[in-house]
Amino acid sequence: MKARVHITLKNGVLDPQGKAIANALGGMGFAGVQGVRQGKFIELQIAETDRAKAEAQVKSMCERLLANTVIENYAVELVD
Amino acid sequence: MKARVHITLKNGVLDPQGKAIANALGGMGFAGVQGVRQGKFIELQIAETDRAKAEAQVKSMCERLLANTVIENYAVELVD
Repeated sequence: MKARVHITLKNGVLDPQGKAIANALGGMGFAGVQGVRQGKFIELQIAETDRAKAEAQVKSMCERLLANTVIENYAVELVD
Repeated sequence: MKARVHITLKNGVLDPQGKAIANALGGMGFAGVQGVRQGKFIELQIAETDRAKAEAQVKSMCERLLANTVIENYAVELVD
């Protein structure tokens, strides 16, 4: 089973990388960029075939390794 | 308008970061992790309200700054 995980900074957490991208885009002539937030996107291929178990497993991976839950949110999405 | 951009490594391009995550997960006792690919996820808030123009603008941003199109693919998705 394939899992797609989005890891994004929580609201209110400063995002210097996003800020740098926004500044760079402005400098390149892209007007109207009001905000940029950069996150991570992780695709996992796991052996587990049971949907509920797979979701629980991936959530546990996020809690323990993939996301820093102090400042980041994560969202897990299973693909068939 | 909000745009969500996924930037992923092309097939065949080595992904040492994904490999490191897979090894770490294995070491933590998560069996059955068959593969991990790490990508980037960027959310942009742009002033443009016309859907087609917004999409063209964000694609241009990807080509020129956000993605390294030699080794990366990008996908643009507009939200409302």
